[in-house]
Amino acid sequence: MKTILLIGIGPGDPDALTLAAIKAIGRADVFFFLEKEGEGKDSLIRFRQQILQTHRGDQSYRTATVALPERDRETAGYVGAVEDWHRRRTALIATLIDTEMAEGETAGMLIWGDPSLYDGAIQHLRDLIESGRADLSFEVIPGITSIQMLAARHKIPLNRIGESITITTGRQIEQADPASITNAVVMLDSRAAFRRLEGAGDVDIYWGGDVGGPDEILIAGPLDAVADRIERAIALQRARKGWIMDNYLLRRRPQPS
Amino acid sequence: MKTILLIGIGPGDPDALTLAAIKAIGRADVFFFLEKEGEGKDSLIRFRQQILQTHRGDQSYRTATVALPERDRETAGYVGAVEDWHRRRTALIATLIDTEMAEGETAGMLIWGDPSLYDGAIQHLRDLIESGRADLSFEVIPGITSIQMLAARHKIPLNRIGESITITTGRQIEQADPASITNAVVMLDSRAAFRRLEGAGDVDIYWGGDVGGPDEILIAGPLDAVADRIERAIALQRARKGWIMDNYLLRRRPQPS
Ligand SMILES: C[S@@+](CC[C@H](N)C(=O)[O-])C[C@H]1O[C@@H](n2cnc3c(N)ncnc32)[C@H](O)[C@@H]1O
Ligand SMILES: C[S@@+](CC[C@H](N)C(=O)[O-])C[C@H]1O[C@@H](n2cnc3c(N)ncnc32)[C@H](O)[C@@H]1O
Repeated sequence: MKTILLIGIGPGDPDALTLAAIKAIGRADVFFFLEKEGEGKDSLIRFRQQILQTHRGDQSYRTATVALPERDRETAGYVGAVEDWHRRRTALIATLIDTEMAEGETAGMLIWGDPSLYDGAIQHLRDLIESGRADLSFEVIPGITSIQMLAARHKIPLNRIGESITITTGRQIEQADPASITNAVVMLDSRAAFRRLEGAGDVDIYWGGDVGGPDEILIAGPLDAVADRIERAIALQRARKGWIMDNYLLRRRPQPS
Repeated sequence: MKTILLIGIGPGDPDALTLAAIKAIGRADVFFFLEKEGEGKDSLIRFRQQILQTHRGDQSYRTATVALPERDRETAGYVGAVEDWHRRRTALIATLIDTEMAEGETAGMLIWGDPSLYDGAIQHLRDLIESGRADLSFEVIPGITSIQMLAARHKIPLNRIGESITITTGRQIEQADPASITNAVVMLDSRAAFRRLEGAGDVDIYWGGDVGGPDEILIAGPLDAVADRIERAIALQRARKGWIMDNYLLRRRPQPS
């Protein structure tokens, strides 16, 4: 048997690590680094290395790093392009398992935020096992998501009493009927999709850039009043450090009754 | 100034605590326990006490406990009843702050799961500050939610590629158009609301009882095939230990195209 640990490490604050994550880090013989090229690559690698340094500094361990070309962001077939990218990542993980792990060993993968939220690793491993790798098992160790960090920093509940909340992507917001959005957290938005809800007059936004990390920025207010400021903050952070990860909550104010 | 720390402690696994939560526990002079009466009271208190024992055992600290009557679950006016309950909780917290904290002190509240998800404490403190308590500040320390624990234990992603996910309540599911539910996590369901989606033939359920804790139960499969088993598991756990906390993901299978 070979065992893979998918270890959620939180969204950029070393103190967001759980005790279970630290124990899992202690169990791994080897750590896999699948590195996307491009934006933020170096500081994301550095963050993971610091975590290993802090929690495994006294014990030797191996690492195996593979570079992964960025997925094709320009094609119209978004789902197709993402599926193709998933297949290539799955194949890379299979190769790492075959070449970097001895029988009986355990490998760790440090997953940004929580592994269950907009991350492919769980599905990659399910696909590998389904495709016949009976010698493989994996465990998931939950991590703090960037959504919880956003809410914690703004000191707001994600949902008002009894209310639902939708977690969605910039791409979905671009296509949705603005009127249908009452309480939504948006991730993976690279094109300021929040602007679609401007002018409605009753939407508040709670926005966060690199929440939890050393470059955290928080902006909140009526969407119409703060949208420009948010776009400037995004541009500034991109200019300053080359990239930004941001998310936000859009919330419609209740009608006075 | 007085400072309140709302500390997320995860959904029942002592190892789900983050380093930030442990540091916050170390900072508090006093811990507030607001205990709901009824179901699960004793074991929830015991879990919190064990956490303090583990992470503050070497240092003295004070606790202040107030009992809170259960909110009225039978009235038709759900939102009204919950709002009334919130007002009473807020008043209780104000009393604790006035009578149990000296100037300059810090109080900790250990919040189940994550404070931003279906928990009133953040709103209570916002209301207190808004009502004029300028001497009060609070911080939120995120915790692992029961949703992430559910996904981790079932080893599933919360969302498929590019897809949204809705977090909602049993009460909302009872009122929703079943066809509108494609990918939803349901919390606060005491009446097996998942049965509303039975018979559609294309819905899978990933259900968890007391996930993360010592009595964890997991059941997954096509809703029509496992709904009875889930209801029996709920009844059995209630009979055995007096209560259960459960949540689940409802997911519609994609149409073959
Ligand atoms: C591929 S997803 C991974 C999400 C991650 N698994 C989690 O639990 O947050 C990346 C998206 O998460 C959000 N994100 C991740 N880290 C963030 C941070 N520190 N601050 C703000 N948003 C963040 C951004 O919306 C980004 O586009
Ligand atoms: C008042 S809400 C609090 C949620 C909590 N703040 C969190 O982050 O999970 C209580 C609901 O959370 C869910 N829940 C909490 N702990 C759970 C557990 N260990 N297993 C399954 N569901 C749980 C149940 O749906 C329960 O009705």
